[in-house]
Amino acid sequence: MTAEQERRSIRTDLAIEAHQMLVEEVKEEIPGVMMETETIGEMRVTRVNITSEDAERRMGKKQGKYITLEAPGLRQKNTELQDIVSRQFTKELLSMIELEADTTILVVGLGNWNVTPDALGPRVIKDLLVTRHILHLQPETLGEGFRAVSAIAPGVLGITGVETGEIIQGLVEKVKPDLLIAVDALAARSLSRLHTTVQIADTGITPGSGVGNKRLGISQETIGIPVIAVGVPTVVDAVTIADDLTTHLLEAIMEEAGPDSPVYKVVQSIAEGDRRSVMSEILEPYGGRLMVTPKDIDTLIEDVARLLAGGINAAMHPAIESEETGKYLH
Amino acid sequence: MTAEQERRSIRTDLAIEAHQMLVEEVKEEIPGVMMETETIGEMRVTRVNITSEDAERRMGKKQGKYITLEAPGLRQKNTELQDIVSRQFTKELLSMIELEADTTILVVGLGNWNVTPDALGPRVIKDLLVTRHILHLQPETLGEGFRAVSAIAPGVLGITGVETGEIIQGLVEKVKPDLLIAVDALAARSLSRLHTTVQIADTGITPGSGVGNKRLGISQETIGIPVIAVGVPTVVDAVTIADDLTTHLLEAIMEEAGPDSPVYKVVQSIAEGDRRSVMSEILEPYGGRLMVTPKDIDTLIEDVARLLAGGINAAMHPAIESEETGKYLH
Amino acid sequence: MTAEQERRSIRTDLAIEAHQMLVEEVKEEIPGVMMETETIGEMRVTRVNITSEDAERRMGKKQGKYITLEAPGLRQKNTELQDIVSRQFTKELLSMIELEADTTILVVGLGNWNVTPDALGPRVIKDLLVTRHILHLQPETLGEGFRAVSAIAPGVLGITGVETGEIIQGLVEKVKPDLLIAVDALAARSLSRLHTTVQIADTGITPGSGVGNKRLGISQETIGIPVIAVGVPTVVDAVTIADDLTTHLLEAIMEEAGPDSPVYKVVQSIAEGDRRSVMSEILEPYGGRLMVTPKDIDTLIEDVARLLAGGINAAMHPAIESEETGKYLH
Amino acid sequence: MTAEQERRSIRTDLAIEAHQMLVEEVKEEIPGVMMETETIGEMRVTRVNITSEDAERRMGKKQGKYITLEAPGLRQKNTELQDIVSRQFTKELLSMIELEADTTILVVGLGNWNVTPDALGPRVIKDLLVTRHILHLQPETLGEGFRAVSAIAPGVLGITGVETGEIIQGLVEKVKPDLLIAVDALAARSLSRLHTTVQIADTGITPGSGVGNKRLGISQETIGIPVIAVGVPTVVDAVTIADDLTTHLLEAIMEEAGPDSPVYKVVQSIAEGDRRSVMSEILEPYGGRLMVTPKDIDTLIEDVARLLAGGINAAMHPAIESEETGKYLH
Repeated sequence: MTAEQERRSIRTDLAIEAHQMLVEEVKEEIPGVMMETETIGEMRVTRVNITSEDAERRMGKKQGKYITLEAPGLRQKNTELQDIVSRQFTKELLSMIELEADTTILVVGLGNWNVTPDALGPRVIKDLLVTRHILHLQPETLGEGFRAVSAIAPGVLGITGVETGEIIQGLVEKVKPDLLIAVDALAARSLSRLHTTVQIADTGITPGSGVGNKRLGISQETIGIPVIAVGVPTVVDAVTIADDLTTHLLEAIMEEAGPDSPVYKVVQSIAEGDRRSVMSEILEPYGGRLMVTPKDIDTLIEDVARLLAGGINAAMHPAIESEETGKYLH
Repeated sequence: MTAEQERRSIRTDLAIEAHQMLVEEVKEEIPGVMMETETIGEMRVTRVNITSEDAERRMGKKQGKYITLEAPGLRQKNTELQDIVSRQFTKELLSMIELEADTTILVVGLGNWNVTPDALGPRVIKDLLVTRHILHLQPETLGEGFRAVSAIAPGVLGITGVETGEIIQGLVEKVKPDLLIAVDALAARSLSRLHTTVQIADTGITPGSGVGNKRLGISQETIGIPVIAVGVPTVVDAVTIADDLTTHLLEAIMEEAGPDSPVYKVVQSIAEGDRRSVMSEILEPYGGRLMVTPKDIDTLIEDVARLLAGGINAAMHPAIESEETGKYLH
Repeated sequence: MTAEQERRSIRTDLAIEAHQMLVEEVKEEIPGVMMETETIGEMRVTRVNITSEDAERRMGKKQGKYITLEAPGLRQKNTELQDIVSRQFTKELLSMIELEADTTILVVGLGNWNVTPDALGPRVIKDLLVTRHILHLQPETLGEGFRAVSAIAPGVLGITGVETGEIIQGLVEKVKPDLLIAVDALAARSLSRLHTTVQIADTGITPGSGVGNKRLGISQETIGIPVIAVGVPTVVDAVTIADDLTTHLLEAIMEEAGPDSPVYKVVQSIAEGDRRSVMSEILEPYGGRLMVTPKDIDTLIEDVARLLAGGINAAMHPAIESEETGKYLH
Repeated sequence: MTAEQERRSIRTDLAIEAHQMLVEEVKEEIPGVMMETETIGEMRVTRVNITSEDAERRMGKKQGKYITLEAPGLRQKNTELQDIVSRQFTKELLSMIELEADTTILVVGLGNWNVTPDALGPRVIKDLLVTRHILHLQPETLGEGFRAVSAIAPGVLGITGVETGEIIQGLVEKVKPDLLIAVDALAARSLSRLHTTVQIADTGITPGSGVGNKRLGISQETIGIPVIAVGVPTVVDAVTIADDLTTHLLEAIMEEAGPDSPVYKVVQSIAEGDRRSVMSEILEPYGGRLMVTPKDIDTLIEDVARLLAGGINAAMHPAIESEETGKYLH
């Protein structure tokens, strides 16, 4: 296993983390990746653009644009900051797509509403302003400035017995939206990102992403219309934490010993096998099904769902001034 | 408005109630309706068969078979009776359909999980043993005696912006099941039926049925495969109760006065208009959105969902002995 | 049964409704009741003061002050109006109590969190800014301008097996607050008040009030400290609706017939008995356990809980500018 | 820090784990601890008796009896095994207490119902057969064979602002039960114990135990009546996992290097500091608030709550044959 393969075994759904891990390893800029960062108050906005096949392969992330909003303050109950992030989220979302007055949108909330950290998608759907049926049946009740938005939270493979991608294909064939927005809970590598980072990508959802693994990708290739993926990390895999802990510990020991020390070589030679066997011993028997989350995950999810729903509502409907995002919630 | 039209304005999703109302009115048997009743312990099973167009029109229920299980004891927490009803439900469900070993089934839980009395369908889905994906991917983990069951709780028009019937059409085209079972919360005319009556029908769901009105029918005609509808009344419309109360009161007064009394005629002549204006005055402003439910509806729904899910699981999977229905429940 | 006793059998927890019913009946002002009304935008504020024992007996409401905020627009999702009502609620609440900088407050959320229309109290507790423990252990983390607030949602007699009043007595003896605020879901007589009316009273909770009957009163007499009761109607008893419907129908008939008609007397003489037997026949077997609610009660309760919690937070803690009430909500 | 102190910094609420850790370290039997193990089918029952002050101090667990039921099969949906464990739980619970026909019992569900892994206690209360009020008011409706059981789920310090122990003291003074049973979610050291182990102890709850730290102990000393603590591990602290991983990794390296190798000493000398700094770096910024849980924790908690409630119901009420435990569950 090369170091690059090794690194990719660590699970992150965030392009910004994948990029950072790769840069740390190869210690140089990655050709085919453009990145710019902007700081707005307590929030940092990073725009990553993956433009080559080689960069796609090395980073393990599809070619396309990834925008990340980071606001560590979201971890504390802070409705003012939530509003600021929500408004910026609306702006960045709009920068990724081209909306005409009559563009129709389908929002899909991926994940399982019975499993708290995977319930982000369905929770967002609950707070969305859905208008497609009203525009069909009684457009006069809405007035100007609303686009036709429909929404579904189809559940997960374990509940439906059907690939989520197939359900969406069937629905898209019936509803024929112009654009799909897929909202999902993500896995991060770093605990500091839980509930504090929003990622928007124009690449869709790739197989194996999201908290509950999805096999069939949800993207323009499989669905036939542009797919914007919106996600927030809600868990870190226990394996990722374990990997980080043990790797850093070995590095720290070797660094302290120094490269010329006999310890360095010995530790290097014996450590990797031990590291893996210790990890699999400790994390058994729940293995891949373990996750690390903050204790107050239930309220954190609720806050973030509200933020995303408000931001999507404002982006889809010109009539909703960002200032009053909350007004049309539920 | 004729008496028959009038009667049909009263809302019931139960064929057994529609039949009873019609018989009470015309005071004779209805041609084109066959009915048999069986008593099993504390439970009564009624099988209604509507076989003519004329009967369909007069009863306001589609031609086909309707089986009703009635067990007033379900209102009290009684797990023994729940088991008995669940097993009979399995038996009656199997009497309506022809299952081969490789028949594939899609179960749809209609209704809105955010509105307690309308959440029956989604709650049943939660407790269902879904196997389609396992039979595709790792059939060996299941062993013999399981059919491919998939399931979805698509939400309601107000949440999705899409007709539920359209969502199901799209899904059926992808999944290609041989049989569809649609589970829904019903409206009854009589309060005594709430959470104590199960109806199984081979007619599908007709437009306007169910607690939240559905416009597009879900039936063999619209979906292309046989559709079995399973439902339990969870609400009585406030309008129905109001109608019953006021009608019965006028009848009681007129009966007591006697047909020859001057009162009889006067009351008859003036009453109907007053009745309607009083009703609309009292039930405004919530109008059609009001329902009557028992206070402990939350636990009643949970119990009935468990009963239905257990019964469907046992009917779909020969490996599940009815005796151990509960074993595979979540 | 006199007309006054009869009237009192109709269930309302609102002083404003009890007053209105009495005035309609006796057709004159009630001595010992002072009432003033103020209109503020879409909201009406009514202040009723019951000052004599005779008025207490006739109205069936304890002597004391009752403030009612009415805003029919709350039935529609309207966050702007919610804010306005929440701020006025804060103001009226403060007008009823005298708070020193070191006054300590216990907020009790009455009702059953498993029964949606009775869950208002517990839902408010969930959104409350509770500070007592922080002020004891780490006052520096809060800064200036916070009073010591504690809170409990003790559940109902059917869940605990203990009178709620006893649980609160025990808690008050331990915590020794200066003031108790009791939040409860109420029953109204009129459907138009559901989720649109807030009542604040300095009389505490009297036995038999609230959606789930409480036997032991919660008031200064039983608890030993001032008790402010805050409530919002979430249900109308089915019996109340039935009573209203049938009474109004008889009145309409008699009015139309005219007092000199023979019909008038006959209807009057035979009607009452029939009315009662029809009511008990129709409402059986669920009898007293039936309620009438809007179908979207789940989201209505959530909105109103947020409104009350925000208003209480702002009233208790000077540091919370009313303008930013939402900031400290979960 | 001695090795024993060090070990005690690892968090476990299970006496059986504390004992095992101590034995592994000192590599000899612990005086003052008696232990016996019985295997019943797929279940292991261990009875630990701590009888000396010295053993109490070394194990960090109060003197008294601890019974542990272990059934790894509970991790899979297996209702048959759930029944077996529930019945054994009833038997073991009864072995710890002396019940007269008129013994009265208060069951307290500790924890926070808004935080899934901490919601075990409140969930058990929901499924409990509470009888105290019925025996007071209408004993005839119950028949023979029921003891007076009351119950409360008081919430946690962060929600109430009051120490849970104080709330219970107040309640016990009012209700005057003869026995208190406290149900709580526990933290384990080993992931394999999550949702598969039940601990019963006659020592009460000691300060700092449980998933949400409690400061005031709940025991005979503080409450004045015998306190039986019942718990099931639902989380492992992220710190515990991190500690285990890094400790085992260092041990593995040192073991492989051999005690005579220069590596051994170097690693030993430099490792501990690095280990701690790596841990605090990785687990920051969520620090102590992180937990490790299985992804399907929501359904696991529901199953275990049902098991405990059924078992307590059967133990408290002779009328409930263990065979029909489920009959009285909601």
